[in-house]
Amino acid sequence: MKVLAVGDVVGEAGIDTLHGLLRRVKREHGADFVIVNGENAAGRGIMPKQADDIFSAGADIITLGNHAFSKQQIAPYLDEHPDVLRPANLAPQSPGRGWGVFDGPQGLRLLVMNLIGRCDMHYGPDNPFLCADKILREAAGQYDIALAEIHANATSEKLAMGYYLDGRAAAVWGTHTHVQTADNRVNPKGAGYITDIGMTGPVVSVLGVCVEQSVAMFRGDLTEYFKTAPGDCALSGAVFTIGRDGRCASVARVWERWAVR
Amino acid sequence: MKVLAVGDVVGEAGIDTLHGLLRRVKREHGADFVIVNGENAAGRGIMPKQADDIFSAGADIITLGNHAFSKQQIAPYLDEHPDVLRPANLAPQSPGRGWGVFDGPQGLRLLVMNLIGRCDMHYGPDNPFLCADKILREAAGQYDIALAEIHANATSEKLAMGYYLDGRAAAVWGTHTHVQTADNRVNPKGAGYITDIGMTGPVVSVLGVCVEQSVAMFRGDLTEYFKTAPGDCALSGAVFTIGRDGRCASVARVWERWAVR
Amino acid sequence: MKVLAVGDVVGEAGIDTLHGLLRRVKREHGADFVIVNGENAAGRGIMPKQADDIFSAGADIITLGNHAFSKQQIAPYLDEHPDVLRPANLAPQSPGRGWGVFDGPQGLRLLVMNLIGRCDMHYGPDNPFLCADKILREAAGQYDIALAEIHANATSEKLAMGYYLDGRAAAVWGTHTHVQTADNRVNPKGAGYITDIGMTGPVVSVLGVCVEQSVAMFRGDLTEYFKTAPGDCALSGAVFTIGRDGRCASVARVWERWAVR
Amino acid sequence: MKVLAVGDVVGEAGIDTLHGLLRRVKREHGADFVIVNGENAAGRGIMPKQADDIFSAGADIITLGNHAFSKQQIAPYLDEHPDVLRPANLAPQSPGRGWGVFDGPQGLRLLVMNLIGRCDMHYGPDNPFLCADKILREAAGQYDIALAEIHANATSEKLAMGYYLDGRAAAVWGTHTHVQTADNRVNPKGAGYITDIGMTGPVVSVLGVCVEQSVAMFRGDLTEYFKTAPGDCALSGAVFTIGRDGRCASVARVWERWAVR
Ligand SMILES: [Fe+2]
Ligand SMILES: [Fe+2]
Ligand SMILES: [Fe+2]
Ligand SMILES: [Fe+2]
Ligand SMILES: [Fe+2]
Ligand SMILES: [Fe+2]
Ligand SMILES: [Fe+2]
Ligand SMILES: [Fe+2]
Repeated sequence: MKVLAVGDVVGEAGIDTLHGLLRRVKREHGADFVIVNGENAAGRGIMPKQADDIFSAGADIITLGNHAFSKQQIAPYLDEHPDVLRPANLAPQSPGRGWGVFDGPQGLRLLVMNLIGRCDMHYGPDNPFLCADKILREAAGQYDIALAEIHANATSEKLAMGYYLDGRAAAVWGTHTHVQTADNRVNPKGAGYITDIGMTGPVVSVLGVCVEQSVAMFRGDLTEYFKTAPGDCALSGAVFTIGRDGRCASVARVWERWAVR
Repeated sequence: MKVLAVGDVVGEAGIDTLHGLLRRVKREHGADFVIVNGENAAGRGIMPKQADDIFSAGADIITLGNHAFSKQQIAPYLDEHPDVLRPANLAPQSPGRGWGVFDGPQGLRLLVMNLIGRCDMHYGPDNPFLCADKILREAAGQYDIALAEIHANATSEKLAMGYYLDGRAAAVWGTHTHVQTADNRVNPKGAGYITDIGMTGPVVSVLGVCVEQSVAMFRGDLTEYFKTAPGDCALSGAVFTIGRDGRCASVARVWERWAVR
Repeated sequence: MKVLAVGDVVGEAGIDTLHGLLRRVKREHGADFVIVNGENAAGRGIMPKQADDIFSAGADIITLGNHAFSKQQIAPYLDEHPDVLRPANLAPQSPGRGWGVFDGPQGLRLLVMNLIGRCDMHYGPDNPFLCADKILREAAGQYDIALAEIHANATSEKLAMGYYLDGRAAAVWGTHTHVQTADNRVNPKGAGYITDIGMTGPVVSVLGVCVEQSVAMFRGDLTEYFKTAPGDCALSGAVFTIGRDGRCASVARVWERWAVR
Repeated sequence: MKVLAVGDVVGEAGIDTLHGLLRRVKREHGADFVIVNGENAAGRGIMPKQADDIFSAGADIITLGNHAFSKQQIAPYLDEHPDVLRPANLAPQSPGRGWGVFDGPQGLRLLVMNLIGRCDMHYGPDNPFLCADKILREAAGQYDIALAEIHANATSEKLAMGYYLDGRAAAVWGTHTHVQTADNRVNPKGAGYITDIGMTGPVVSVLGVCVEQSVAMFRGDLTEYFKTAPGDCALSGAVFTIGRDGRCASVARVWERWAVR
């Protein structure tokens, strides 16, 4: 089985890129199952329209992150769509779900969990490590293969999660920093791992944002904030090749440029 | 000209790896000039002995970071060694220097600057963007090629610096997250860029630290902290191929495994 | 009933001050029950010896904070002493307890809970608001009067907790900033409240630390860190006058100077 | 000479309170000079209309803080009004000024500086300690009495500034936490000091914000954010009695309730 995870889709440009490339990438890599992080589909957050668009581009599951509820209009949509996951370790009364068991290829039942880190991020969520334990306990017997996205800032928190779930999940990938890392590999007990799969959006940008605005902010100039950058985009992600035994055989990085019309 | 930048050397294991691999890597890539980040050579910080060891392994310049003065014994050494740079934007009364002009290959005068970010790090340093401007102004006329290391946590701050110095520096590379990124490239105006060149130390580790300790900390268990992990190491870095016009032609990632005896 | 809460005792000087003043302050205010924050009794953290010393000075309960386990030797002591509380919302597997029901004056059963904030502090603990709900649920029927210490940095988090527990607790007081606030008052539904009760330790100091060291750190000078300041001390706290109906009638600040011999 | 410093005025309610109380408070305390923090006059930030309103209520100087440019419309106003100060240690290219020498009572020339802290706040500003040194150097010979507001989060940073300027400034007061502290006093070399003078706005609120919204946010509920709380307000500040020798004789806290019509 091959799982394709796609990193944070940024704005309309990112969604266009997904429509332009996702089915081709899926075909070329032979991916059977596609998980797309959509927390920036509306810049900060996502609205029902963008979620529909991401599904129509070929995603099986949409995951979110710290911007899950930056647009609160998404809340009722989450309650109706179990295939859109917000971080599982948000406050328990949050709308939506943080994990689910889904029908995968070859009759495999896939447990997908969306976790969020806290180191150098917002302090609000519950402990993602203990949350992962709880999910694995609750879902025991209901799934064949476990997959985990850790949406986090600190490389330390993501690396630690990759080792923590090693032997219990077949793939652990990071999102949130919007820059793809080069450390794709299989951990000692068989979990495919990469610290960050990168973002899907404008190539010449700072996390998707217009370079001039970001530079101005760091210089301490007054500036407006958060215009999506113009120009060519890229789809960024990773493909995990997973055996029926739940071990990952290899992790390949994906980075495909898309010329915006 | 080819510049090899090597990421944070962690502990004795990292220094051994440097001794084992640096000259070979340099030869294989045809690198003329080697800059090594040494801020973790003594775990947190560096002492004169480790600095001597890094030079003897083949470094031309040692750079530092947030741990520059975690071992304060290094302070007098810095005053005597202009080829060891601490971040230029630390408080102005700090010991040592943050930049220098050094004799490079082909008679080229190389301006090397060490900058540190502040986003999701310590708030103490001065603005690294304005500091870079100041250094370029002060050094004007004294150098042929400018090279900048940005030791920072946030991908946004490093990306912004890469664009900010684009057209003014031939290479800008990030350090500090200890995980190599896959975004090596040449920016629009000719600056070679990569968000993080990774670390030189134990492969199966969390930033160099023993996995069990890091996991315990994230779980909220009581734990000791900061034993360097055992096992095989890797040398991690990047090679920038730079023309006499100060434009970078290409950036290649380097990641070489070293079997610890 | 009158409850005296005493703020973070800093070092040996703070313990001496407690021995010199606590019984007198208790008598003068007619306090029946004394709760002392001891998280800095050993500078960072507390050891069994200091806990014994604080009890022998007249404390009924010792509370802790972010430094609860800075000296891990205290862990077994906590397991044996239910009257020493560490924050209740630390990871559930932490040693010790975060709340207890204790025999108070007039046959009243006092629920005392120690909570820790996360805003501008460490992200590790669980949500203190939801934790307080859970404790009140678990302890329902076992207590007559509830008292809560919120060890937190942000005034917002402490104020919000004061309102959140208003009507459910008779007193809510803050610790951690080491500076006493002037907002002692009774909240609309009867909870006595003060944002911070201050610290017990050296008057001319920065949170108990030697002024020169703190200033040096903020200037960006190299400096050693965390020598306790010399000179006169003060005991700092608040007295809550609470009726049998669980409403607080008044909150008085306490600040008494102690001339160190 | 008596200087009245008034803490962060929050919203229209805060401005109304100022109009209702400031002249009476000034008269009752015999204050000669009034400095009002206006960074929250428009909730987040301030606009020209609110600045005019604060002056018409009786302020001699308006100071700002981290919200100085949350409404960027204020920028040109600052350039035209030297009696509105934004933090002096913002990036040097920022609009407006961070300090000025003003005609005070009894022919005294008053140096007023507005500084901002960085600990547990935004990392952007320059070092406020070194900035204060620079201002005192630049203004040398032009003033008789120096006054400094330190807009900061950490009690440590404010306390350290109070000692750092002791002997060089006649008064140092903190703002930003919106909760008045009880540590008003004169430091060893004669600087009047208080860690925070509190805020001018709704009494039953979390820093001025509606209690329900703040509690919801801390619980992790979805919530709108930042409606100013209803109900009675208070004017909060401090009066510094300063001799011609530049030593402060005493610091008195001011807290006056204002019944909103
Ligand atoms: Fe994110
Ligand atoms: Fe994102
Ligand atoms: Fe670092
Ligand atoms: Fe490092
Ligand atoms: Fe504390
Ligand atoms: Fe403390
Ligand atoms: Fe503020
Ligand atoms: Fe404010």
